Amino acid sequence: MQYTGSFDVNQTRIQGIYTPTLVPLDANGQIHEEELRRFLSWLIDKGVNGLYPNGSTGEFTRFTAEERRRIARITCEVAKGRVPVLAGAAEANVKETLAACETYAGYGARAVAIVSPYYYRLGPEALYAHFAEIGRNSPIDVTLYNIPMFASPIDVNTIRRLAGEFPRIIGIKDSTGDVAFMQRMIAAVRPLRPDFTFLTGWDCVLVSMIMAGADGGTNASSNAIPEVMRSLYDLAKAGRYDDAMKLQYRVLEIFDLMLNPFEFPDGFRAAAGMRGFALGHGRQPMTPAQEAERDSLAQVLRCILAEFGAVPPPEAGCAPRTGLAAADKTSQVVYEVLHELERRGLL
Amino acid sequence: MQYTGSFDVNQTRIQGIYTPTLVPLDANGQIHEEELRRFLSWLIDKGVNGLYPNGSTGEFTRFTAEERRRIARITCEVAKGRVPVLAGAAEANVKETLAACETYAGYGARAVAIVSPYYYRLGPEALYAHFAEIGRNSPIDVTLYNIPMFASPIDVNTIRRLAGEFPRIIGIKDSTGDVAFMQRMIAAVRPLRPDFTFLTGWDCVLVSMIMAGADGGTNASSNAIPEVMRSLYDLAKAGRYDDAMKLQYRVLEIFDLMLNPFEFPDGFRAAAGMRGFALGHGRQPMTPAQEAERDSLAQVLRCILAEFGAVPPPEAGCAPRTGLAAADKTSQVVYEVLHELERRGLL
Amino acid sequence: MQYTGSFDVNQTRIQGIYTPTLVPLDANGQIHEEELRRFLSWLIDKGVNGLYPNGSTGEFTRFTAEERRRIARITCEVAKGRVPVLAGAAEANVKETLAACETYAGYGARAVAIVSPYYYRLGPEALYAHFAEIGRNSPIDVTLYNIPMFASPIDVNTIRRLAGEFPRIIGIKDSTGDVAFMQRMIAAVRPLRPDFTFLTGWDCVLVSMIMAGADGGTNASSNAIPEVMRSLYDLAKAGRYDDAMKLQYRVLEIFDLMLNPFEFPDGFRAAAGMRGFALGHGRQPMTPAQEAERDSLAQVLRCILAEFGAVPPPEAGCAPRTGLAAADKTSQVVYEVLHELERRGLL
Amino acid sequence: MQYTGSFDVNQTRIQGIYTPTLVPLDANGQIHEEELRRFLSWLIDKGVNGLYPNGSTGEFTRFTAEERRRIARITCEVAKGRVPVLAGAAEANVKETLAACETYAGYGARAVAIVSPYYYRLGPEALYAHFAEIGRNSPIDVTLYNIPMFASPIDVNTIRRLAGEFPRIIGIKDSTGDVAFMQRMIAAVRPLRPDFTFLTGWDCVLVSMIMAGADGGTNASSNAIPEVMRSLYDLAKAGRYDDAMKLQYRVLEIFDLMLNPFEFPDGFRAAAGMRGFALGHGRQPMTPAQEAERDSLAQVLRCILAEFGAVPPPEAGCAPRTGLAAADKTSQVVYEVLHELERRGLL
Repeated sequence: MQYTGSFDVNQTRIQGIYTPTLVPLDANGQIHEEELRRFLSWLIDKGVNGLYPNGSTGEFTRFTAEERRRIARITCEVAKGRVPVLAGAAEANVKETLAACETYAGYGARAVAIVSPYYYRLGPEALYAHFAEIGRNSPIDVTLYNIPMFASPIDVNTIRRLAGEFPRIIGIKDSTGDVAFMQRMIAAVRPLRPDFTFLTGWDCVLVSMIMAGADGGTNASSNAIPEVMRSLYDLAKAGRYDDAMKLQYRVLEIFDLMLNPFEFPDGFRAAAGMRGFALGHGRQPMTPAQEAERDSLAQVLRCILAEFGAVPPPEAGCAPRTGLAAADKTSQVVYEVLHELERRGLL
Repeated sequence: MQYTGSFDVNQTRIQGIYTPTLVPLDANGQIHEEELRRFLSWLIDKGVNGLYPNGSTGEFTRFTAEERRRIARITCEVAKGRVPVLAGAAEANVKETLAACETYAGYGARAVAIVSPYYYRLGPEALYAHFAEIGRNSPIDVTLYNIPMFASPIDVNTIRRLAGEFPRIIGIKDSTGDVAFMQRMIAAVRPLRPDFTFLTGWDCVLVSMIMAGADGGTNASSNAIPEVMRSLYDLAKAGRYDDAMKLQYRVLEIFDLMLNPFEFPDGFRAAAGMRGFALGHGRQPMTPAQEAERDSLAQVLRCILAEFGAVPPPEAGCAPRTGLAAADKTSQVVYEVLHELERRGLL
Repeated sequence: MQYTGSFDVNQTRIQGIYTPTLVPLDANGQIHEEELRRFLSWLIDKGVNGLYPNGSTGEFTRFTAEERRRIARITCEVAKGRVPVLAGAAEANVKETLAACETYAGYGARAVAIVSPYYYRLGPEALYAHFAEIGRNSPIDVTLYNIPMFASPIDVNTIRRLAGEFPRIIGIKDSTGDVAFMQRMIAAVRPLRPDFTFLTGWDCVLVSMIMAGADGGTNASSNAIPEVMRSLYDLAKAGRYDDAMKLQYRVLEIFDLMLNPFEFPDGFRAAAGMRGFALGHGRQPMTPAQEAERDSLAQVLRCILAEFGAVPPPEAGCAPRTGLAAADKTSQVVYEVLHELERRGLL
Repeated sequence: MQYTGSFDVNQTRIQGIYTPTLVPLDANGQIHEEELRRFLSWLIDKGVNGLYPNGSTGEFTRFTAEERRRIARITCEVAKGRVPVLAGAAEANVKETLAACETYAGYGARAVAIVSPYYYRLGPEALYAHFAEIGRNSPIDVTLYNIPMFASPIDVNTIRRLAGEFPRIIGIKDSTGDVAFMQRMIAAVRPLRPDFTFLTGWDCVLVSMIMAGADGGTNASSNAIPEVMRSLYDLAKAGRYDDAMKLQYRVLEIFDLMLNPFEFPDGFRAAAGMRGFALGHGRQPMTPAQEAERDSLAQVLRCILAEFGAVPPPEAGCAPRTGLAAADKTSQVVYEVLHELERRGLL
């Protein structure tokens, strides 16, 4: 399942599948650099169009400023000459953010992604002021990052103002999953800025977004199924929508399962780990109850990954699924218990 | 712009564009029956696939139970032998609702649509109990109606339970506009019930919904631009997605303008009225400030309708638009004032 | 526990505890008039300051327009010469609502309560237009009713406009439970209208609301514990806040239990029924699972009511409680099972 | 207006008014240490019961980890021997947070406040795991900090679990402003932990919260009106609720004005600056439109502060107010323009 296409690293336009990369941690919760390099390299081999360190999936808020720099540097080193890097550069304030932009430009990143300010919820005028300051001073191309479930929502008019005034601002990553909102952004901005890039962070509607004109996605799922996400993109981009939709439905199931019943991004971490990486435990502590829950859900994940041909199925085999996580988890647990009883000759 | 296709009234599957019809009112706020008949007949002539009285656009909550029956009866009479009718039948409680189902069956409706209980927000088990009672006893096919912005949200698991147990429940109208949610419903229900119908009430993502497998839409916009909505459906259904998306973007602009800056459904009423119908004033009182605002916005609506070839443009011509309602309204007002000054030789 | 105070029925100001009365239903789901009269009379005997038919607790949306009139008429007949009636009069539209106002004036109601329009969410200007039309034409005093969890929220500025312009609008019932919002309303309106009445529908903060200047409450809990709610009001009104708070904490526990784990208003129905009334089953269907859950929770309710001296405790006795419904329900079930086993000599 | 009471720095219980202190910045946006020390000392002189650096009002997320340590250190130095310090210690992850706890213990802080994790919204089990890790390992007393508008909401059951298991967790600061929620927390925790401290961050309901059993507040308003907030607390604590409520209404007006029309915490910064401190410009950039708006609103703030006797009124005098920010701002602008025209003899 090695992806064999080629990439133009010097492409102007950011497009395709950018992986918001998970960060492998060692037993002490420190960045496991060797495994990170191996993981990033594998992602590139599997066909992702770019790497996106320090995104939400990369748990950027749970690292220190120094660690974020280190992650970005390692990523740029691995990606060099192979795929472009879009580096998350949001820091505590505009001054620190601009310093990170400069640093990441020095590392050779293609562009930076700046999430809308979070914790405090800023209004449109304050958001404009924030991004205007960055757009005016950044030494590297900037993509906005809109994720209202975590950060201040960016409205269409503000996006339009920023796109119209700052050539350095070249795109937006939007994680609403709202196709109409994507269309509104595209309708408002493309006439002014045909070069403006639109990326979706909502893996389960990638095909619809591309049909609506988006340029690709920064999709957490591509940590676990990079080759599938790349195929999904290629099919949609080629206008093979019916084939793309068939695959989209399969991605929907695994995306929902990685996203919803887990604390984010543990489901993605669990699935990506099954591809052969020691991703370790996230930095957020877990109770034993959570760990047991995670392990049960992971078996369902393994079944879906096996159907993609990405991993071998569980030894006990896989129970039929409905697509509803709670039910499917229970079915699989029952399935495995029965299998175990059978194996022991108790059934 | 008369639609010349033909319809199979006895079709089993509900599909295509169903218009959630507006109700013309006379100067006293009473149902203007003659105009209603003329309007419904015109919609059929323009190609809509079905009529949907007593929907949200039809302001069903603002009519009495008797008036709702009258509206359904008139609609069935006009539609007879031409297009199927999907009649909104939700009443104060299950018993009253079942009585309306019976009445509408007698009128010759193809099916009824039952909105999820509103005012009180019911949990999943209570929703199941509600629709199960209806599914068990209705003498006519039933479509569920999910519109979380107004009524209790119906979750995927509950839809699946209902679809799996009650053959009388044959479909769902969903007005979330959430493409991923549509996919989740389809994934959960189609394996059990290949006949189950999925309709979207969110006009601006109709193409994406159809690509995802939906059967059509119950779209308020089709009151004003029935032939456009029908074309949009036909293009998408034919797999001509790129052409469909071009039209979808134009529908997005007029839909957003009819929906957002007006109180619902006044924007749709204003636009449909321009097609040559005396729809009158809605039942909700307005202040003079609201009426002035409505009239200014209506001029922008007229410009868009003119671009569809549906009405002549305003005498003063049309200002360039951005797609952002507030800005476009102001531009058009300025445009018209300048035109008037010019006309009077003052400029 | 009979309340022995006296009432001035002709009081100008609406104040004290108004019970938003439940409606007893017979086995066919019809209004059980005899039991309704007995229940209303008992409430008055127990000391409530007024009756409030056709409120949210009275499930006004689940009755037909004719039934709502009947409920209001019966209530006025029972209350006549004893306590004032505040009758919920919201109907499908302004014209129907005004007709109900006229009817209820004829029945001898003290005033009507008009809930903000629901289903559609109206903006401030439309809300103003709606209530202005009613304020201008009602033949009876009107209280606004703000319950954002179910209906269009009314903002402070709109309340102020309406209070300033329409003498017929004499008060507001607010069910947000937000003490700061109550203070904002009082600060904005009292300088213009010292006579304006403020009632809270959030039983668990009644004392705080009264301390902040509110005139009383329309409290669902008073269906089950009328004498307690009256005492709570009297203590707070007398400035005996520390005693009042002790009682408020006890009311908090029972209110939360009646409100949260049940579908509204089934918890209130269950508790009020224990006071000796055949309230019957609500009109919303229930699954067997819901009924079993309701019955388990009801045993905890019985324990709390027993502590108020309102009913005898369950035969098995009462398990210790934490105030958290799920835990307390489980404890009580275990308690009863153990008791039963003991009774049968199995333990 | 100097506060002349005395403090017991070694008090066990955290109670009274803790100021979540603003941080003065110089022209380069750097911490203005001299002014910070002068400001903190003034707050103590004015009677606040404690200082709370690195809270939301202190814009902790907009400083670097090093800056947060410096702010905490300075605060502890100024407060030493005068009032206790409750230092915000949330960092990127649990390990960094525990390191800050240790550092702040070394500075002599009385306790730390740990805000619930933000950006990602954690579920109850994950929240429990997070705070359990801190409660188990912190070398200094910990207060939880619940502020659902910015961070993961902490539910009552989780608070109860944490309070029951970790003696190091000694209290909670809650910024919901929901009196019923405060009562629920107190009801759930006090029986287990009579020593547990409850503080409210919602200045406009401080009196209600204290009547309900809270121990005090961490109130942003006390940056601008420390002596008023202290009086409010003292009146309420003394059971003089009617006098307290009169003052509470005045605090409501200024709190709402500092909070709502400004981006947080600019309104508090503007008002506190008027007390004679060079607080400088916050770190979030502003457009000229925002600055003009802020300056207009600030004049209304000045009028209210003048009524508290805290600053002289504007030269032009003060327009009558309604308590609704937009209206009051406009009135004051008109007032000042008229005054200026008069001064110039043009009126």
